[in-house]
Amino acid sequence: MFSAADAAFMAQAIQLAGLGRYTTSPNPNVGAVLVNNGQVIGKGYHQQAGGPHAEVFALREAGSDAAQATCYVTLEPCSHHGRTPPCAEALIAAGVSRVVVAMQDPNPQVAGRGITMLREAGIQVDVGLLEAEARALNPGFLSRMERKRPYVQLKLAASLDGRTALANGDSKWLTSEAARADVQHYRAQSCAILSTAATVMADNARLTLRPEQLLRPVSALDNGQLRQPKRVILDRNGLLDHKLALFADGGEVLLCVSKLENERQLPNIARQIHCPLTAQAQFDLPLLLEHLALREQVNTLWVEAGATLAGTLLQLKLVDELIIYLAPKLLGSSAQPLAVLPEFSALAQVPELSWSDVRMVGPDLRLSARLR
Amino acid sequence: MFSAADAAFMAQAIQLAGLGRYTTSPNPNVGAVLVNNGQVIGKGYHQQAGGPHAEVFALREAGSDAAQATCYVTLEPCSHHGRTPPCAEALIAAGVSRVVVAMQDPNPQVAGRGITMLREAGIQVDVGLLEAEARALNPGFLSRMERKRPYVQLKLAASLDGRTALANGDSKWLTSEAARADVQHYRAQSCAILSTAATVMADNARLTLRPEQLLRPVSALDNGQLRQPKRVILDRNGLLDHKLALFADGGEVLLCVSKLENERQLPNIARQIHCPLTAQAQFDLPLLLEHLALREQVNTLWVEAGATLAGTLLQLKLVDELIIYLAPKLLGSSAQPLAVLPEFSALAQVPELSWSDVRMVGPDLRLSARLR
Repeated sequence: MFSAADAAFMAQAIQLAGLGRYTTSPNPNVGAVLVNNGQVIGKGYHQQAGGPHAEVFALREAGSDAAQATCYVTLEPCSHHGRTPPCAEALIAAGVSRVVVAMQDPNPQVAGRGITMLREAGIQVDVGLLEAEARALNPGFLSRMERKRPYVQLKLAASLDGRTALANGDSKWLTSEAARADVQHYRAQSCAILSTAATVMADNARLTLRPEQLLRPVSALDNGQLRQPKRVILDRNGLLDHKLALFADGGEVLLCVSKLENERQLPNIARQIHCPLTAQAQFDLPLLLEHLALREQVNTLWVEAGATLAGTLLQLKLVDELIIYLAPKLLGSSAQPLAVLPEFSALAQVPELSWSDVRMVGPDLRLSARLR
Repeated sequence: MFSAADAAFMAQAIQLAGLGRYTTSPNPNVGAVLVNNGQVIGKGYHQQAGGPHAEVFALREAGSDAAQATCYVTLEPCSHHGRTPPCAEALIAAGVSRVVVAMQDPNPQVAGRGITMLREAGIQVDVGLLEAEARALNPGFLSRMERKRPYVQLKLAASLDGRTALANGDSKWLTSEAARADVQHYRAQSCAILSTAATVMADNARLTLRPEQLLRPVSALDNGQLRQPKRVILDRNGLLDHKLALFADGGEVLLCVSKLENERQLPNIARQIHCPLTAQAQFDLPLLLEHLALREQVNTLWVEAGATLAGTLLQLKLVDELIIYLAPKLLGSSAQPLAVLPEFSALAQVPELSWSDVRMVGPDLRLSARLR
């Protein structure tokens, strides 16, 4: 069904899609390439929610050459009138003869209807080319659509003996400036950052994106399209004072509380969201994640918190990917632990992961692992 | 002074030298290549102490073609009558016209005399080509010669949160079979393994080389040339019973005691060595390492021990290289620590290392780091 040339053009579309990774959320990253007689005549990628979809950019570039062309697109063309008209209609109107789709759109508003619309117009549609690679473009969007929760990345920083701070709390700076700049790239690609009131108060943390720390090239930076991620803070006891740096600037602050307090004075960028407690008087984190996906359109959630929340999320298997910056230092056995977990009585009970990526970031190692 | 061809031939000699890494100790790894008219006419590497040196193998292969040839050798040819006659004499007798030497031999019995001998015979000698690479062949031999102590590699195995065992001691199996097989390669290349009576008794450990676990190709394995490393066990209180598996087979056992006990019954493969205590009633480890280098000809010492000895060696800066097998598991904050170190009051005080190598070993990561 697919030729080597098909694969090469789809790979181009996938590369294009990746250019939107700082800016498209809550929409997915999508890339499109139009090909006529073996020549690329139009390229495009989705840049911002509300702006044109990838196919539209490609069709604009191709103009009338799009007639009888093949369109390679990383996600099924949309069939519904959202903030833009349906791309399936645009492709039909342009007279393309074939559409190659990497994967069907799990969005219930599309879910195969785009493909059907194209086929009913007499266009050949082939689905499934480089599907795994296309899925990897959008872990957050797919998680929100398919699992009703965000894709959760837990960030940790530790010494090589697994400690996050000295016994006295000193952790400045355990990891390097390069590692902290690398964190900014993750923040920039996340819809929201999850943390706790304790963490925010300990460092008067802002949890904002600092674009000046991003390593170029980031085209979204040059285009002024970067957005500040929302900050979701677990603040069960309403501890956060409105004078904290958190409230000074940056993205919206969502304070998770167990009881909404109408009297509470909050800055404009902040609002409370209600999150029920479990029988153990802890926040019901699965419910919170569902809320963030369904109500707040959070695709990717980046967690920066202490050993307690890290341990709870890991224990509940709510972490999809663990990102750990490992500094080549030894803090010793009196220093603070990486994750608080219950005491296990056998190795067979402990959480297991698999290493997915390793790279040097300045003098530190960045290890990525996925929960099994 | 050196051409690209010189570098290529020396690189060959370095590759050859590496073939002896399981078998030459206490001698260094050395490789030699003889070249005449741009053609390699003889190759050799040192295989075993007492056997012919690299140059001799190369000269044998070259025969009378060695006249007017250039010899590339990774270490200065020897000048003294040891267990074999001096290689400098053999090169002179064969009529070579030039000798390219990667590095001078730090052995005080040689130390430039081989080079002088060759030059006095009218041979052109050029020294220093790929010296860093040649040094990397022999960290242990060079450490013994230059620092009067072995090159110390500390092996650790931990979960990604830096824990070596559960609170109840369970650590079977934290790391994979592949990681344990990888350890066998380090043991096979070490002159001695350092451990403690506590570690030996906890697992009834043998600390032997198990050749059947080595991943091929290891030519020394096929040639039956592998040796069992000595086992150096800190046994201050004379706790080790002669019925332990440690004494059943394998290399010699050196029991480090603070006071020699003439009455103690020991198997044939074991003997006591006296190691003084410090003012803190701990073994004087710098002195022990000096003893192992000067009296026991230990080039490379492989340490497999618990968090206490690991911490002490690290704190005393007696570790050259740390090898840590990191299992993608989380043992939690109640589990056992990687290294016991004093409580630090500032990050500026903690031991710092630098990452030197990372690779996957089965499902685990093997991280190497050098102490700064």
